[in-house]
Amino acid sequence: MIQQIDHIGIAVKSLDATVPYYRDALGLGEPHIEEVASQKVRVAMFDVAGVHIELLEPTSPDSAIAKAIEKKGEGLHHIAFKSNDIAGELKNAADHGIRLINETPVPGAHNTQVAFLHPKSTFSVLTELCQHPESC
Amino acid sequence: MIQQIDHIGIAVKSLDATVPYYRDALGLGEPHIEEVASQKVRVAMFDVAGVHIELLEPTSPDSAIAKAIEKKGEGLHHIAFKSNDIAGELKNAADHGIRLINETPVPGAHNTQVAFLHPKSTFSVLTELCQHPESC
Repeated sequence: MIQQIDHIGIAVKSLDATVPYYRDALGLGEPHIEEVASQKVRVAMFDVAGVHIELLEPTSPDSAIAKAIEKKGEGLHHIAFKSNDIAGELKNAADHGIRLINETPVPGAHNTQVAFLHPKSTFSVLTELCQHPESC
Repeated sequence: MIQQIDHIGIAVKSLDATVPYYRDALGLGEPHIEEVASQKVRVAMFDVAGVHIELLEPTSPDSAIAKAIEKKGEGLHHIAFKSNDIAGELKNAADHGIRLINETPVPGAHNTQVAFLHPKSTFSVLTELCQHPESC
């Protein structure tokens, strides 16, 4: 079952430009920053009472985030739900007619398993499901 | 200080069309539904471990949500942070050069006090601050 909102992904052109807003103007504290080479992004993660704000900066013009910014500009990009049974979530979503980008989970950062639902069947909200290793 | 993410606002054309996705395909359970006349929206709220997903359906073509849908389509609309000192948050944000839509908090639903930061100074993420009555 879905246990909580895991994170909210926000597409940004530059971490250097946007981190000060979240860190200082909102006062969310120092983020954890890492590069996720497989997604061609650099990510700044702010922990807000267990739910993360993830700022996603493209590291290549052909990353999905670069394309999203080109098409729609910066801003809210996706929402991720944490589940303890991602395979079960995918089956249930498919049974309800939802189109899956990933039919089966794929490896994400930090040994997570992740899968995306297609925004064309989720009313334009790109939706990620993720399962952390402690739930595997 | 900001205590948690309060809710994520999602603009939708129709609650009837979108509620089944969140309720059944994601399995988030039955939402609380209410009309917020001042905002000209009907809202379906799903409680996901204390953070709410709020689906916002316009009840009038001149509501802000109707205009957002007309301009950008359905999808992720805003993020709201819960604070125990909204006036302090606004002062701090303004001190960091953030443009405020509401210079002082205005009444929201359920006796909350709310204020919006302008997306032109928050990297295109419409950001709401809210304070619940138990923190007043």
